[in-house]
Amino acid sequence: MSEPFRHRLRVRYNECDPQNVVFNANYLMYFDITMGELWRELGGYQAMVESGVDMVVAEARVRYRAPLRFDDDFEVRATIAKLGDTDMETEIVAVRDGETVAEGDLRHVFIQAGGGPKATIPERIRSGLEQYSPASG
Amino acid sequence: MSEPFRHRLRVRYNECDPQNVVFNANYLMYFDITMGELWRELGGYQAMVESGVDMVVAEARVRYRAPLRFDDDFEVRATIAKLGDTDMETEIVAVRDGETVAEGDLRHVFIQAGGGPKATIPERIRSGLEQYSPASG
Amino acid sequence: MSEPFRHRLRVRYNECDPQNVVFNANYLMYFDITMGELWRELGGYQAMVESGVDMVVAEARVRYRAPLRFDDDFEVRATIAKLGDTDMETEIVAVRDGETVAEGDLRHVFIQAGGGPKATIPERIRSGLEQYSPASG
Amino acid sequence: MSEPFRHRLRVRYNECDPQNVVFNANYLMYFDITMGELWRELGGYQAMVESGVDMVVAEARVRYRAPLRFDDDFEVRATIAKLGDTDMETEIVAVRDGETVAEGDLRHVFIQAGGGPKATIPERIRSGLEQYSPASG
Repeated sequence: MSEPFRHRLRVRYNECDPQNVVFNANYLMYFDITMGELWRELGGYQAMVESGVDMVVAEARVRYRAPLRFDDDFEVRATIAKLGDTDMETEIVAVRDGETVAEGDLRHVFIQAGGGPKATIPERIRSGLEQYSPASG
Repeated sequence: MSEPFRHRLRVRYNECDPQNVVFNANYLMYFDITMGELWRELGGYQAMVESGVDMVVAEARVRYRAPLRFDDDFEVRATIAKLGDTDMETEIVAVRDGETVAEGDLRHVFIQAGGGPKATIPERIRSGLEQYSPASG
Repeated sequence: MSEPFRHRLRVRYNECDPQNVVFNANYLMYFDITMGELWRELGGYQAMVESGVDMVVAEARVRYRAPLRFDDDFEVRATIAKLGDTDMETEIVAVRDGETVAEGDLRHVFIQAGGGPKATIPERIRSGLEQYSPASG
Repeated sequence: MSEPFRHRLRVRYNECDPQNVVFNANYLMYFDITMGELWRELGGYQAMVESGVDMVVAEARVRYRAPLRFDDDFEVRATIAKLGDTDMETEIVAVRDGETVAEGDLRHVFIQAGGGPKATIPERIRSGLEQYSPASG
């Protein structure tokens, strides 16, 4: 059984709005930070770019379940739901004290660094992602 | 025939990331700003809150079509796709020089101000939104 | 008599924090946006970078006088206080309805684009800036 | 000898701009986060607000020494330079691998929660701050 990639975060004051909860767009920032931490584990995003491959977000979705507030400590869990030749889909859950506060999906497309056409996912990245992909198990 | 609500924006430098394009989460910020401008036309968000009704984003989706860059001038167009008793769905398109650069959907839920349970959409808000709702035509 | 460069802005919801006022760091963002608009008038920041000269902020200061709130409409006024060979100092005032809500100072250093050593301020930029510089009058 | 309060941070991708360095306003965000962590140690910012005292930034200054980049790991060190009756001054240094990348000063004013007039620094906060204040040694 594969386990999701996990990253812990704490809500910063400036991430909250006058409703006293995290501003809705910042959940996508949390997802992006988590993907960056996953990439760190896979050898680093900069290293991938320097090897000639970059990635962009093609689609993003968030379902907000319960508000996050200043100082809340929560965990973002990412599971690779699909690994294509040139794209991947990630399912994300944000959990605070055992409660799911948000769910999301991201679709990334790999491209040649510098803004070029689609590129195949590098083998080292692919094999690293498979450990977080139930479909690969 | 109803027309979408329209709001023009220009990309700020700090909204762009090292890829030299607008950071993915900021599209949700652009959508939120546009909804705020729509609410201004409907009498103001603060006035609605002071009347006892607030709103929260329950779901958001973005499909990224083409990158926005620093200083780009673009228009966000919002169409009310569904007007429920206590929720609404908005379809959003971001257009630069006639090209669709992003599409999105938002679902808002109306609640009692202060974080309470669901609330009926105020009549003045509802009738204002109907002019941007093809289904109401 | 020289006049300051002026740029109008409106406070966005996500720029405010749970205190219901603009988060303190965002004033530097407002100053940066205003400098970007000034540069647009001088021919564009990107054009300067492509000509081989870039600029970085070396020092920034803000004195907060009165809180800005969501939807506030205000004006940022920039005066060039000093034009050196390779640096410049700008005095900034943010005004809402005739009231000064913040004051600031920025010192920018010009460098060779791409992160190089100090560079002389391009002549076209210098002459454009002089119209906002009382000392040049 | 007093030691500064220390907090470690890592640069997020979205905190960087197209120059591939941290956007200048975000240093004030880093300072604010660090003050928030200091307040956590003193019993929590929310607890202070609930006890009737809030604080606002009255003045902020940053001197940028060397650029911070994506993924950089750095430490923010805060020293309480002055503890007045109703205000405090903090000297801040950001250090990466032994190199000072930025220096700053903040002046905070204590007010009655809810936006009221100046308030005396609560005794528990004051005594907690003194351990980071050389002048109190």
